[in-house]
Amino acid sequence: LATDFIAPPAYALGIDLGGTNARAAVVDANGRIVSSAKRRLDERSPAAVVEAIAAAAQSALDAAPGVAVKACGVGAAGQLRGDTGVVAVAPNLGWREVPLGGLLSKRLARPVRVVNDLKAAAWGEKRAGAALGERDVYTVFVGSGVGSAVIANGQLVLGATGVAGELGHVKMVPGGRRCGCGEDGCLEAYAGGHNLIAQMREAIEAKVATALMTRIDGDLSLLTAAVLEEVAAAGDPVAVRIYEQAVAFLGQAIANQVTVLNPARLILGGGVLLHSPRTYDRIVQGVGLFAARVSREGLKISPAALGDDSGLIGAALLAID
Amino acid sequence: LATDFIAPPAYALGIDLGGTNARAAVVDANGRIVSSAKRRLDERSPAAVVEAIAAAAQSALDAAPGVAVKACGVGAAGQLRGDTGVVAVAPNLGWREVPLGGLLSKRLARPVRVVNDLKAAAWGEKRAGAALGERDVYTVFVGSGVGSAVIANGQLVLGATGVAGELGHVKMVPGGRRCGCGEDGCLEAYAGGHNLIAQMREAIEAKVATALMTRIDGDLSLLTAAVLEEVAAAGDPVAVRIYEQAVAFLGQAIANQVTVLNPARLILGGGVLLHSPRTYDRIVQGVGLFAARVSREGLKISPAALGDDSGLIGAALLAID
Repeated sequence: LATDFIAPPAYALGIDLGGTNARAAVVDANGRIVSSAKRRLDERSPAAVVEAIAAAAQSALDAAPGVAVKACGVGAAGQLRGDTGVVAVAPNLGWREVPLGGLLSKRLARPVRVVNDLKAAAWGEKRAGAALGERDVYTVFVGSGVGSAVIANGQLVLGATGVAGELGHVKMVPGGRRCGCGEDGCLEAYAGGHNLIAQMREAIEAKVATALMTRIDGDLSLLTAAVLEEVAAAGDPVAVRIYEQAVAFLGQAIANQVTVLNPARLILGGGVLLHSPRTYDRIVQGVGLFAARVSREGLKISPAALGDDSGLIGAALLAID
Repeated sequence: LATDFIAPPAYALGIDLGGTNARAAVVDANGRIVSSAKRRLDERSPAAVVEAIAAAAQSALDAAPGVAVKACGVGAAGQLRGDTGVVAVAPNLGWREVPLGGLLSKRLARPVRVVNDLKAAAWGEKRAGAALGERDVYTVFVGSGVGSAVIANGQLVLGATGVAGELGHVKMVPGGRRCGCGEDGCLEAYAGGHNLIAQMREAIEAKVATALMTRIDGDLSLLTAAVLEEVAAAGDPVAVRIYEQAVAFLGQAIANQVTVLNPARLILGGGVLLHSPRTYDRIVQGVGLFAARVSREGLKISPAALGDDSGLIGAALLAID
């Protein structure tokens, strides 16, 4: 029969593994989510997390009856050992050297590919989001940390040991502010969300006069990147100093990557950027000022389009592609 | 006959087009030069340059009788329009928008691929030199200018418009020293050979007391990067300032690319680096200090191995590959 020769539609399971939840979705080859489910990670041992993922996956599969799902892709918040499926470090889970791909592949009885969550999200944007159809894409995420992912010649760049894209740890100030990674002067130490909050705390704890203190009514737990931006916009010198430093360094560092990578499209995502049109605009302006003219000409810049689903979708598509 | 099934050895013509000479070589699929020839570029019109290339190519071909050469690759000192064969700008030749690939393909009656000379050289090193067998390679050249080439997933990264690798124009100091490209604060404005000489001249012309003046016996034309290094090593404050600034910025900028690209191997080439073991060592030290630990672990660093032939060899191999 002629229909024998029509390839069945391809589906994959996409998993987004954060520090708090495991999400699973059945995704088609165009990046559409057919069904999805979520499980809280109450316990963080590898065995417990694998069970939580398996439960979420089963719920998603149950909600998509009749769909044949052959492969599974995982985007994990952590540092991977190349394409081996081993999570070298996942700070949010307290993991070191966990062979997640192998464990999950056995549990799900399917081939499993594990990539870093930002790389999965960037791949989702490339295949089904803001960079659809582009071959050369640079994606930057500014949230609690700062990260990026490189797509060149239509392929995700993992790097020799799987850690390509560590934009948060380029050095802006040799010997500068101490970063959570233990090194000094990293971009993330000035511009990551956690460090924006830390810098505000430090100023307040050093008794520097600042409108930040009145804005939060003395409750340090209310300090956020959004509060910083608001108080900086009102002209408070402490907030202005921290905020301006962050956007200046982000603009310069991202521009320098645009100069070297010459992407067709730059995608800006992550909580700090997506929830602040002003910060987004300042980064775009910085790239315009500092990227080399030849790499800037024709560059398209856009916000990430898939929101929280980009990692789920990208992980599934990486398993299909 | 069984021998019908043995593929004939593949050969290609490699062309290295600089500002002064056109070199041609017949190169085999392993990157070995079978024969080569050179022509001076007395006239720099596109037609005259195409004739000079054709003459060099014919000499190389005549010296390799019985070898079937099907394709031709050109490494050109200039900025290319992607993979179209059009040279957008070649400052040394005074060219703008010259369709070199088309002109040369007609003249040589062979398919011709044109890439930037540094990309060709990097490909030569990857296929037959210091990065043999590596999939992820970052190559930096410090000569009169500063440039680089990215190889990721085993492929040369051209970028969306063919200008990937412009390391010389990453911004080290927003609003800093004016660069030859017209922008401010570029790495090349501090660390390229032309700019090292320009900075020494500026100090001398500003009548700043410096041992550089006595070292060259008043003849400004004797200023070179090697003289700078020598006088800096002897402790002259002006030379120390210029030299230390250059190596610090080179170390930081290269380290930041290692952080983002996570190459298996970093190759350092170009006249300023290859003729100065001390400068080479300082850059290696800078990468060790400033690259993120996860990208630095396992990174191999080596000098370019093919010397002046890397571009010829790489251009030919790009036509074969």
